[in-house]
Amino acid sequence: MTYCVAMRLKEGLVFVSDSRTNAGVDHIAVFRKLHVFGVEGESIFVLQSAGNLATSQAVVTLLRQRIQHQSEGHLHSVKTMYDAAELVGATLREVLEKYKDQNTDFSCSFLLGGQILGQEPKLYNIYPQGNFIAATQDTPYFQIGESKYGKPILDRALHYDTSLEKALRCALISFDSTIRSNLSVGTPLDLLVYLNHSFVIPQGRRLFDDDPYFNTIRSQWSEGLQQVLAQLPPPPEDYWQ
Amino acid sequence: MTYCVAMRLKEGLVFVSDSRTNAGVDHIAVFRKLHVFGVEGESIFVLQSAGNLATSQAVVTLLRQRIQHQSEGHLHSVKTMYDAAELVGATLREVLEKYKDQNTDFSCSFLLGGQILGQEPKLYNIYPQGNFIAATQDTPYFQIGESKYGKPILDRALHYDTSLEKALRCALISFDSTIRSNLSVGTPLDLLVYLNHSFVIPQGRRLFDDDPYFNTIRSQWSEGLQQVLAQLPPPPEDYWQ
Repeated sequence: MTYCVAMRLKEGLVFVSDSRTNAGVDHIAVFRKLHVFGVEGESIFVLQSAGNLATSQAVVTLLRQRIQHQSEGHLHSVKTMYDAAELVGATLREVLEKYKDQNTDFSCSFLLGGQILGQEPKLYNIYPQGNFIAATQDTPYFQIGESKYGKPILDRALHYDTSLEKALRCALISFDSTIRSNLSVGTPLDLLVYLNHSFVIPQGRRLFDDDPYFNTIRSQWSEGLQQVLAQLPPPPEDYWQ
Repeated sequence: MTYCVAMRLKEGLVFVSDSRTNAGVDHIAVFRKLHVFGVEGESIFVLQSAGNLATSQAVVTLLRQRIQHQSEGHLHSVKTMYDAAELVGATLREVLEKYKDQNTDFSCSFLLGGQILGQEPKLYNIYPQGNFIAATQDTPYFQIGESKYGKPILDRALHYDTSLEKALRCALISFDSTIRSNLSVGTPLDLLVYLNHSFVIPQGRRLFDDDPYFNTIRSQWSEGLQQVLAQLPPPPEDYWQ
């Protein structure tokens, strides 16, 4: 399984992905699910994937090869973020076409966020069919993969005008909840924060299990929750009868 | 959808169920999913259901009718909680047998908790196939239905020796998280707390949307979480690059 979250906020874009893949619980491996494309000063595209690893790797590899070979309509030549999402969707359909007669689910889904010079930043959720929706101010984040455990904290705390720094904390807490409840999501986490209109392609950061900051906020969060729970008033007596 | 949680703790048993059923989001209704059986002073059985409503209603109705008619092997005549779980599983298989040639999923699952005089309280998770597992001190709770949103708080805060009062708060917070993130789970909630070895069958309580206690802890919890999140240290600067 996988868990990826991406946010399109007033100040910028935030991406966090786990890196665990599994074919059964006895076959677990680490694969990066956060991929960065773009040309410094002109464009940035961040792609996250969930689902069949062969399919998502094929899509990412084709996108990269076609940039290298300057093939017609490659990712660095698109005019808008919408066209970039179209290209990812079309590449996904192209890969899946080969396996359409097999009775197996090879599908995957993507989150694509980024910005092209002179345009606003965008974030798309690209479905296994290759069609997609865009994040808005009302719904500033998307998740793919094992999304349910980590959704409540995002629903409570994340808004379009949340600062990038707080949004990143919020994303990491969302991962903490998911990792605790689901073995198939695991560290290291890949994270990347893009400041709107900067057109600087950030290196991003990989957080391992022993990351001091991640462990600090994990334990503070856990203690904080216990305290809040302990401070809630007890149920009225007639709830017991 | 549905969300039910049941806990088997040192002091007693805690059950909370939502009451929303839906066939599509445009067909929502309220049905009780928490059913109480037993003989005051002798036995108590609490049954929660998730899944196909026709199936779960049929199982509950057959169990009740057979108690009324004193049919052989009815629920109030079983010797152990294990036998009670067997009976629920067998009744489920009996109901599903009628539809086995249809290519539709009519399955459902149950949580069954209770106690029989002279024996320890037990809690079973009964699968759609009719087989089941028992809660233990290591794993003192079960969920059925839309369980993922509300699992993290249980994993963090609930232990076998958690007090009933705290466990109930914890269960209600788990419902709050689920209700916020998933439309298909909704109030009223049915809750019931059984004190081990009391053999008093509690009436339980139904919490509506305007329940003052539930709303108090919902808002305190939400504010508390925001505060804990706000107090976490900001990410190191090199996380941004």
